[in-house]
Amino acid sequence: MKKLNIIFFLAISLKLSAQTNYVQYAKPIIGTEKMGHTYPGATVPFGAVQLSPDTDTIPYAYQGKYTGTVYKYCAGYQYDDPTIVGFSHTHFSGTGHSDLGDFLIMPTTGKLHLNPGTEDHPENGYRSKFSHENELAEPNYYKVKLDDHNITAELTTTTRVGYHQYTFPKSDQAHIILDLMHGIYNYDEKNVWTFVRVENDSTVVGYRQTSGWARTRTVYFAIKFSKSFKSYGSKDYSPKVPYRGFWGKFDQTKNFPDLAGKQLRMYFDFDTQDGEKIDIKFALSPVSTLNALENMKVETPNWNFNEIKNKGQAQWQKEFERVQVNMISKADMVNFYTAMYHAFITPTVYTDVNGHYKGLDQNVHLADGFINYTTFSLWDTYRALHPLFNLIQPGRNNDMVKSMMAHYDQSVLHMLPVWSNSANDDWCMSGYHSVSVITDAIMKGIYTGNANRALDACVATANHRSYEGIGDYIDNGYISAERNGTSVSSTLEYAYDDWCIAQLAKKLNRQDIYETFSKRAQNWKNVYDKSIGFMRPKLSDGSFKKEYDVLQTDGQGFIEGNAWNYSLYVPQDPATLISMMGGSKKFVPHLDSLFTMHLPDEFFEHTEDITREGIIGNYVHGNEPAHHVAYLYNWTDQPWKTQSTIRMILKKQYHNGADGLGGNDDCGQMSAWYIFSSLGFYPVAPGSNEYALGTPTVVNAKLNLENGKTLTVTAKNQSEKNVYVRKVTYNGKTLSKPFISFEQLVAGGDLVFEMSAKPNK
Amino acid sequence: MKKLNIIFFLAISLKLSAQTNYVQYAKPIIGTEKMGHTYPGATVPFGAVQLSPDTDTIPYAYQGKYTGTVYKYCAGYQYDDPTIVGFSHTHFSGTGHSDLGDFLIMPTTGKLHLNPGTEDHPENGYRSKFSHENELAEPNYYKVKLDDHNITAELTTTTRVGYHQYTFPKSDQAHIILDLMHGIYNYDEKNVWTFVRVENDSTVVGYRQTSGWARTRTVYFAIKFSKSFKSYGSKDYSPKVPYRGFWGKFDQTKNFPDLAGKQLRMYFDFDTQDGEKIDIKFALSPVSTLNALENMKVETPNWNFNEIKNKGQAQWQKEFERVQVNMISKADMVNFYTAMYHAFITPTVYTDVNGHYKGLDQNVHLADGFINYTTFSLWDTYRALHPLFNLIQPGRNNDMVKSMMAHYDQSVLHMLPVWSNSANDDWCMSGYHSVSVITDAIMKGIYTGNANRALDACVATANHRSYEGIGDYIDNGYISAERNGTSVSSTLEYAYDDWCIAQLAKKLNRQDIYETFSKRAQNWKNVYDKSIGFMRPKLSDGSFKKEYDVLQTDGQGFIEGNAWNYSLYVPQDPATLISMMGGSKKFVPHLDSLFTMHLPDEFFEHTEDITREGIIGNYVHGNEPAHHVAYLYNWTDQPWKTQSTIRMILKKQYHNGADGLGGNDDCGQMSAWYIFSSLGFYPVAPGSNEYALGTPTVVNAKLNLENGKTLTVTAKNQSEKNVYVRKVTYNGKTLSKPFISFEQLVAGGDLVFEMSAKPNK
Repeated sequence: MKKLNIIFFLAISLKLSAQTNYVQYAKPIIGTEKMGHTYPGATVPFGAVQLSPDTDTIPYAYQGKYTGTVYKYCAGYQYDDPTIVGFSHTHFSGTGHSDLGDFLIMPTTGKLHLNPGTEDHPENGYRSKFSHENELAEPNYYKVKLDDHNITAELTTTTRVGYHQYTFPKSDQAHIILDLMHGIYNYDEKNVWTFVRVENDSTVVGYRQTSGWARTRTVYFAIKFSKSFKSYGSKDYSPKVPYRGFWGKFDQTKNFPDLAGKQLRMYFDFDTQDGEKIDIKFALSPVSTLNALENMKVETPNWNFNEIKNKGQAQWQKEFERVQVNMISKADMVNFYTAMYHAFITPTVYTDVNGHYKGLDQNVHLADGFINYTTFSLWDTYRALHPLFNLIQPGRNNDMVKSMMAHYDQSVLHMLPVWSNSANDDWCMSGYHSVSVITDAIMKGIYTGNANRALDACVATANHRSYEGIGDYIDNGYISAERNGTSVSSTLEYAYDDWCIAQLAKKLNRQDIYETFSKRAQNWKNVYDKSIGFMRPKLSDGSFKKEYDVLQTDGQGFIEGNAWNYSLYVPQDPATLISMMGGSKKFVPHLDSLFTMHLPDEFFEHTEDITREGIIGNYVHGNEPAHHVAYLYNWTDQPWKTQSTIRMILKKQYHNGADGLGGNDDCGQMSAWYIFSSLGFYPVAPGSNEYALGTPTVVNAKLNLENGKTLTVTAKNQSEKNVYVRKVTYNGKTLSKPFISFEQLVAGGDLVFEMSAKPNK
Repeated sequence: MKKLNIIFFLAISLKLSAQTNYVQYAKPIIGTEKMGHTYPGATVPFGAVQLSPDTDTIPYAYQGKYTGTVYKYCAGYQYDDPTIVGFSHTHFSGTGHSDLGDFLIMPTTGKLHLNPGTEDHPENGYRSKFSHENELAEPNYYKVKLDDHNITAELTTTTRVGYHQYTFPKSDQAHIILDLMHGIYNYDEKNVWTFVRVENDSTVVGYRQTSGWARTRTVYFAIKFSKSFKSYGSKDYSPKVPYRGFWGKFDQTKNFPDLAGKQLRMYFDFDTQDGEKIDIKFALSPVSTLNALENMKVETPNWNFNEIKNKGQAQWQKEFERVQVNMISKADMVNFYTAMYHAFITPTVYTDVNGHYKGLDQNVHLADGFINYTTFSLWDTYRALHPLFNLIQPGRNNDMVKSMMAHYDQSVLHMLPVWSNSANDDWCMSGYHSVSVITDAIMKGIYTGNANRALDACVATANHRSYEGIGDYIDNGYISAERNGTSVSSTLEYAYDDWCIAQLAKKLNRQDIYETFSKRAQNWKNVYDKSIGFMRPKLSDGSFKKEYDVLQTDGQGFIEGNAWNYSLYVPQDPATLISMMGGSKKFVPHLDSLFTMHLPDEFFEHTEDITREGIIGNYVHGNEPAHHVAYLYNWTDQPWKTQSTIRMILKKQYHNGADGLGGNDDCGQMSAWYIFSSLGFYPVAPGSNEYALGTPTVVNAKLNLENGKTLTVTAKNQSEKNVYVRKVTYNGKTLSKPFISFEQLVAGGDLVFEMSAKPNK
C-alpha cells in the first residue's frame, strides 16, 4: 500500500508539474530591500540586458574606502526608497561591490528637467515618486506607475535588447530623458567618454566608455523609438569640457545629432494623446553600434511589447522546468523559484547575435562554437552555483568554462578570471577559484574543450607569483601575515584550489602536477594553530601572530569573515580537519556553538558584506565562506545535525518579503545554496563528485537533466516538523552514508528521503 | 639652329633627369623655423606615420582662445629650440591649428627620468640638448645626436610603421621612455584614455584615445624592440585616478604588463654595449592592436633600418619623378623638390594594410577598392593642392574623393568634410570646399565613383542650413553681419563653392541644380559695396555695416584676412568682378597697390596664421585667401603683371633656409602654389578646366602623367631677369590668351614659354 501511495502521489505531482506555470512563483522583488542587492527589473535567463528601475545611485566620493550609501545601491534599487530615478539597462544581481547602470531612460511630462533631482525634492528633477501598490515585478516584466508624471512604465527584454513601453497622459510636453551620466558606483572620473549619433527622428546610436570596477569598459547601444520625436537636445555637464575647436559652429544643445563628451544628458520631446504608448527598443553590444543594431533587428523585429514579454517568460518557464518541485507551502514554492530565477541571471551573455565580443585585449573576437559569458563572481559562485549548473545547466556551464579559457587566452597576465566584468578582471576577493569551476566541470565530464590546456591554465594561474601572496605561499607554504592582510583566508582558499588542480591532474595523468598540488593542498595545516584550535595568521618567521581575536572580522587575516568561520574552511578534507580539531567529540559541540553563540551587533559592523540579517549566532550565512559548514556534521558521528541546521538556515535566511534574503545574493550563490539544500544534497567540495546529503524541503522534485535522464527526489512524510532523515534510498537501495555521487544523480532514477521528526541516531 | 639648340638642350636635360636623384633636393628642415609649421622627421609619401622630433609642446591652458606658445608648436618642432623632447609618430605638416603627437619615444642613459624636463633644465628630465650640426633631415630619414645621453637617434618609416634606431654608449642604465601623455596641442583633458599591454619582453601593444582637435579619436599601436628589455615600469600621472578596485593586488608600477589610465608614462630598461644599436618598430592603426601588429608584419618584416630607409626614399624618388625639372640654380631645385615633398605628405593614409579603418560613426569599415585618406585641410588645399593632384596624382586624388564620399556616407550630419582628422571633422575654417575638390575631380574625369551621388552629397552639404550661416545665406543671398563674425568671407566662399556645384550639375545634366546654384554663385555681388569698391559686411536689413576698416583683419567680417585681400575673391568670375571694380583701368592700379602699400606690423598681429614673413605689402601670401590674386592680372589688359608679381612672390616667399616658408605650409597648399607657379600655370578656379598662365621658373620640366602621356614645359631664355613671357606655344601653336586647358595639358606635348626681360605689352 505504501508503495502504491507513493506512486500515486508522484503521478499526481508530476502531472501537475507538467502544467504548472513556475514563472508565477518567481518574485524578482525578493532581495531588493536591505542587503540582498537584487534588482526587480526585467531580464531573460543569463541576459546581457538587465532593464531595471534605479531608485538612487549616490555619487561615489572616492576616498579609498567604501561608503555606506554607494554599497546600498549595488543593484540601483532599494525597496524602501520613495522615488524612481529612471530605468537603466545593466545591473549586477546581488553583488557586494558594483558597476554598470548604463543608459538611464526616464519618461517625464511637464517642464523639462535634465537633472535627476533628489529623493526629498523629486519635483526639481526628472525622477518621480512611486508606490509599491502600483508596481509589479515578474521575471522579464516590470511595471510601475510614475506618479509625478502620470506615466505607466513597463519593461521587458530579450537577451540583448531592453524593450520599454510608456503610457503617457495627454501632453504637449512629454519627454524621454536619456541620461548618459547615470551609473551605479558612479563618481567623477567614472565616465571616460560618451559618443552619440541621432541617426534620424527615431533612431539613436552611440557608446559609453567607463572606468569603474571594470577598468576599461565600453558599451555600445542602439535605440529606436516607436514614435518620431518632434525635437531633441542635450547638455554636457562636464565641469571641464575638452577642447571643442570649431564645433562651436553648430548649436550643439538642440537638434544636433553628433554628440560626444564625458558627461552628457539628452532629451527627446513628444506630443502625446491620453493613453498613448511610446515604445523604445534599446539594444546593447560590447562591440559596436552596428552590432547593437543587428542585435535589435534579430531579437526584436516587431513593435510588440507582449510578444517580447511572453517570449521571455516562456524562456524562464523552460529554465524553471529543469527542476520541477512541489513543496509544502506556496511560500516555499516562491522561495524555490525565486532562487531558481536568481541563480539563472548570472553569468551574463557577452556575445552579440553574430558571435562577436570584445576581449580583454580590447580586440573583437569571435566566440567560435560557444556563447561567451561575463560577470563571473567566482569567489562566490564556485561554491554552489557552478556545481548547480554542472547538474542542471551543463551546456551553459561548458560555455562558461570556455569563456574562462578565452579570458585566460586574452589575459596578458596569463591568468584565469578572478572576477570577470565586461572584458575586464575586477580582481575582487581572494583565491583563484576559476580552477575549482574548471576542475568540477572536467571531473563531471561537462567540459568539451581541451582539458589539458585547461589544466595548464589552472597551473599558470596558481603559479602567478606576483598575485596576492602566491609567491610567498609557494615558497613557504603559507602567506606571511606581514605581507598580506588576508593571509590566512588566502592560504586556506589557495589550498582548496590546489587540491582541485591535483584532482584534475590526476584525472589527466599529469603526475608531476598532481604531486606538487596535492602537497600544496595540505598548506591549510600551516596556518592551523593546534594550541587554540583555530586557523591563525603566521609571521614569516614561522611563529603565529600574538595579538589575535577569533571573533573579529577586521584585521585578523581573513577576508570578509572571522577565524571562527574560516577555521572550518577545508572543504577538500573535512575529516582531517575534524580529526585535528579533536574528532567528533570536540568538533560537534564546537560547531554547535557557532550557531548558538550570541554576538553583539558591533562585531560585524566593520565588515562589508556581513550584515546582521545574514547571521545566525556567529554563523554568517549572508556571506559565503561558511556555506559548506552546516554540512560538516556529515563527517562527524552526528550527521543529523546537518539536517536540523540546514532546515533552520533555510527558514531563517530565505523568505518571501522584499527583505527575504539574509545577505547579498552574490550572483546566485545564495540562491544556489538554497536550491541544493532544498533538494537534500550539497557540493561541499566542488572538484569532488560527491555531494553531502542534507534534508530536502521539497515534497518531491523532478530534475529533467540535459542528458535526457530524469532524477526524482521524494521526501516521504515531508512536513515542517519532519526535518530529519530517517533513511535515504537511491533507486530503491538504501544509502549507508550521508553522501551521494554525481554519477548516481545524472544516471537518473529515484532518490527517496524518509523524513522524520526525530534524528536517526 | 635655334630649333636644334632647343632639342639638344631638352635631350640633355631629360637624360639627366632620368638619372637624377631628386630626393637629395628635398629638405624637410625647410619650414621648421618660425611659422612654416612643417616637421623635419621621417615619412613616406602620404604616410600614416610621421615620425619626427618634438622640441616642445607647451601644455595648452585652454582659455577659449589661442596662446602663442601652442600655435608655435603645431608641428612639434621649432628649429631654434635647443632641446629635443623625443620622437613622436604623428604630425600635421604646416597646419595653423594642431593635434596628434602620439606616442613619444625617447632613449636616455643614466638616472631614469619620467618627466620631460624643461628647455632651461633638460637635465631634470628625459629630454636632451642637440645641435643642428649633428642633425640630418632627408625624406624618410632623420638623424640627430642626443648630446645629454650620448645617443644617436635615427628614424625612418613605412606607411604605417615608424622605425627607430638608437645607438647607445656602454651603459647599465639605458632606458627607452614611452611617454603616452605627450601630445601636440595638449592640455589637461585631451588624453581621454590609454590602454597598454606588455605582451612579452620585447612587444608592447595598446591604444590612446584623445579629445583634441579631433573630438573622438583613438590610435592603436604595436611596438617591437629588437632587444629584450631587462625590466620596465610605468607611472600614472593623473591628478585624479579613476577607481582601481582590486587592481591594488598588484604592484602596477614595475614589470606589470596590464596598464590603463589617463596619463601614463612608461620606461624600458636595457644594458648596452658601446655602439650597440636598439631598433624599435612602432606600428599604428586606426582600428585595433591586432591590425597594428599586422601592419608591422606586412610592412617591416625584417630588422633592417637601411632597407626601410632606402625603400621609403625610393618611394619619394618615384613620386618626385612625376615632375622632373631643371632650374636655374640648385637653390631653386631645393625649393621645387621640397615643395613636391611637402605637397605629397598630406592627406594621409587612413586604412590598415587589410583595408580597414575607423569611420566617423566609430565603426570599422572596409575601404573597398580604394585607400581611405584623412587630414583634409580643405579650406587650404582645394585651391592648388587637389588641382595639382588631378594633374600629377590623379589616382590618389580619385581615392581622396572616394574618402570624402565615405566621410559623407558616415556623417550623421550628412555633410562632406570641412577639415577631416582621423575619423572626425574639425570644422576648421569656412566654406564647404569639398565640393570644389569633388567638382574639379569630376570635371577632369578623375573620379571613378558615382558622379550623381557625389553631386547629391555636394548639394546636401551646401544646403545644411544650421552650418555657419548657410540658412541665412540661402534665404537672403548673403550671411547677415549680425549673425556671423565671418559673414563676408563665408558668403564669398559659398558663392564660389556654389559655382562649382553648378558646373558639376551642368556636366551631369541636372538642370534644376544647375540653375539654383548658378544663381547662388552670384551671391558675392550681395556683399560688394560699389560705393567703396570693397566687399563689406551687410546687416540683415540689407544695409552695409557702417563702421568698417578695409585693412583690419579683426572683426570686419572675414576669416584670416582683410577686406582688401578678400574683396578679390571671386575666382569663378574675375571678369565680372574686375568690371564691377571699374575695369582694367581702375582695377590694375588697385591690384598693384596691394603689393606695394606699406602696413605697420600691428595690422596683422591680431590674426592667427597671418605673419609678417608671409606678407608682401598688404598681400598675404602666408595665408591662402589671396593665392589666386596675382593671376588676376590675366583678366586685365596687363597680364604681364601676373608674371612679374609671381616671380616676385616666388623669390620672396620661398627659400632654402629652415625659415624658408613665408607662412604655414598648410598641408601642402603653399607648396602646390609654388609647384604650379614654377611650372607657369595656376588653377585660379578649381572646377574649371582652365589654368591661368603665369611665368615658369623652371628651365624645363617633364611631367610624366599617369595616362602615359608626357607634358614638357620649356622656358626658352630662362634667367633670373627674364621674368616675362614673350610668347607661349603649345605643341608649336602660339596661345593667343594667357590660359591653357586641362585637356591640353593631359594630352601631353610641349608647352614652350619664350622668356624675356621685358613685358609683352
